[in-house]
Amino acid sequence: MEFDLIDAIRARVAIARDDVALGIGDDAALTGIAPGQQLVACVDTLVAGVHFPRDTAPEDIGWKSLAVNLSDLAAMGAVPTWALLALTLPEADALFVESFAAGFSALARAHEVALIGGDTTQGPLSITVTALGMVPTGEALTRAGARVDDAVFVTGTLGDAAGALRLHQEAGSRGHGTEVQRPSTTTLSSRLNRPEPRIAAGLALRGIANACIDISDGLLADLGHVCTASGVGAELEVETLPISPALAAAFDPAACRELALAGGDDYELCFTVARAREAEVQAALARAGCHATRIGRIVAGSGVRVLGVHGSEVVMPQAGWEHFSR
Amino acid sequence: MEFDLIDAIRARVAIARDDVALGIGDDAALTGIAPGQQLVACVDTLVAGVHFPRDTAPEDIGWKSLAVNLSDLAAMGAVPTWALLALTLPEADALFVESFAAGFSALARAHEVALIGGDTTQGPLSITVTALGMVPTGEALTRAGARVDDAVFVTGTLGDAAGALRLHQEAGSRGHGTEVQRPSTTTLSSRLNRPEPRIAAGLALRGIANACIDISDGLLADLGHVCTASGVGAELEVETLPISPALAAAFDPAACRELALAGGDDYELCFTVARAREAEVQAALARAGCHATRIGRIVAGSGVRVLGVHGSEVVMPQAGWEHFSR
Repeated sequence: MEFDLIDAIRARVAIARDDVALGIGDDAALTGIAPGQQLVACVDTLVAGVHFPRDTAPEDIGWKSLAVNLSDLAAMGAVPTWALLALTLPEADALFVESFAAGFSALARAHEVALIGGDTTQGPLSITVTALGMVPTGEALTRAGARVDDAVFVTGTLGDAAGALRLHQEAGSRGHGTEVQRPSTTTLSSRLNRPEPRIAAGLALRGIANACIDISDGLLADLGHVCTASGVGAELEVETLPISPALAAAFDPAACRELALAGGDDYELCFTVARAREAEVQAALARAGCHATRIGRIVAGSGVRVLGVHGSEVVMPQAGWEHFSR
Repeated sequence: MEFDLIDAIRARVAIARDDVALGIGDDAALTGIAPGQQLVACVDTLVAGVHFPRDTAPEDIGWKSLAVNLSDLAAMGAVPTWALLALTLPEADALFVESFAAGFSALARAHEVALIGGDTTQGPLSITVTALGMVPTGEALTRAGARVDDAVFVTGTLGDAAGALRLHQEAGSRGHGTEVQRPSTTTLSSRLNRPEPRIAAGLALRGIANACIDISDGLLADLGHVCTASGVGAELEVETLPISPALAAAFDPAACRELALAGGDDYELCFTVARAREAEVQAALARAGCHATRIGRIVAGSGVRVLGVHGSEVVMPQAGWEHFSR
């Protein structure tokens, strides 16, 4: 079924980029690389029932499959350029493909990402996207640059996607087909299903942030990766965690805190910056249309400690992450 | 399970390349691009039970998942450089992963391909590999350059993989767990399970061949793609099709012919070249350690016709391709 479906997707996702010499339709794609740039590459798979609920709308699956990859590029401070899509479907379902392509395409257009390769195969629903981008040589943000006394920041708000997932699961376990659509629930669901990769924020952080990661597994886990890669520890002040009004309306404060610390799928950026440059980083992010909150600091040692109001350590019920299922 | 398994694979597949600035372990990989080169990119998914029999050895699955992608790069005349691997497994099976990685790695090392990205997820077994490579700007081989009166060539021999698959299926339907391991069967099986991407041949064809494709869906289907892309037709002389001694030992001549024309998974290169350059192309391929056979010519019109001994058209029982199942 390869040719029909990829053609249908290509028709939906057609984005002209001058640097694509040969797109989908030959054995491989050909693209030009601007001088002085490094290639940035990542791959992520979404499996139905593992990374998204099986009843997720096809448009949302299309959007999210690209978004989680663009989020990785954002964390590197890269400009996304091209993507390759491997779509495995139980059957050649034209309606699914059209909707999927519409969601994928909406995000691809927003960031001028050209789909340059694709493969469709028959099997249980899963989507693998490879995202490619560019960064000026030597300017990429990595996980490894955090320094003791850096401030730790996070963009946007935390825990919304995990909150949406919990509401979805609670509605399911109560036997409701759909949860009650309060305004706050709708806001949270859009964070789960239509995450916005923080591309502009990543670009704004180049040359300022010392380390950066996107939050896919939960703040504790992902900041933990930064600490491991940088050979440092971190202290978070739990009262400073940015909680959205929608999350606060749906959960009590303790649950909000847990979702913000351990919930996955936020796709915000967590970064560290020298304290002397805090004002500079806030100004740069504001120009990029993004807000970030200072949530802690980098310390000597290892691991992430969560501190309460009076500076005492808060013991978390779990330090892992909360995807749809494991 | 992402971190453990990708680390295990990375340990197995570690290949140092000077152009990899940052490999697996951050949000994305960073690589340098040599000046004057275009990036070549392709993606292919293998699903258990669709693209390979479920009882295929994990080593062979690892090899083949990379091979089918390197074959696409070979057809472009590209040098493979990097790969990203998305592996979906029913469970975190360390033994499977080790064997898979050994097979993947054996081929990656042979072509100095560095694994720069990976994702492991839980789900039904499938493997998606994105292969990246380089080609000097403007020198890539494509499907679109075939001209009327070009000679049509194919590297190696045709039908071996499809023959192995047919023997495997016949053994299965007879209720045998494994087919009889005659020497010819072993040779055919290795063509199915360990295809050798024709990288050196693709490089040798740069600047000589007018069009090129790799044979994954079967000669008729893939030469048909060249004809469509080039706006031409083709005539094949059925008696010239290169049949291996192993295939001839296992099947009657009519079956051999059908397997060579319609069987998939050969991963040989089919290319067209101006008749005046036939000797030149043979010499260049010989230097690359490869042999090619002239099997027909490009004609005005469209579609692929198969001609018998006396020049009359042979009607084929099927013009499609023969993967493990559809």
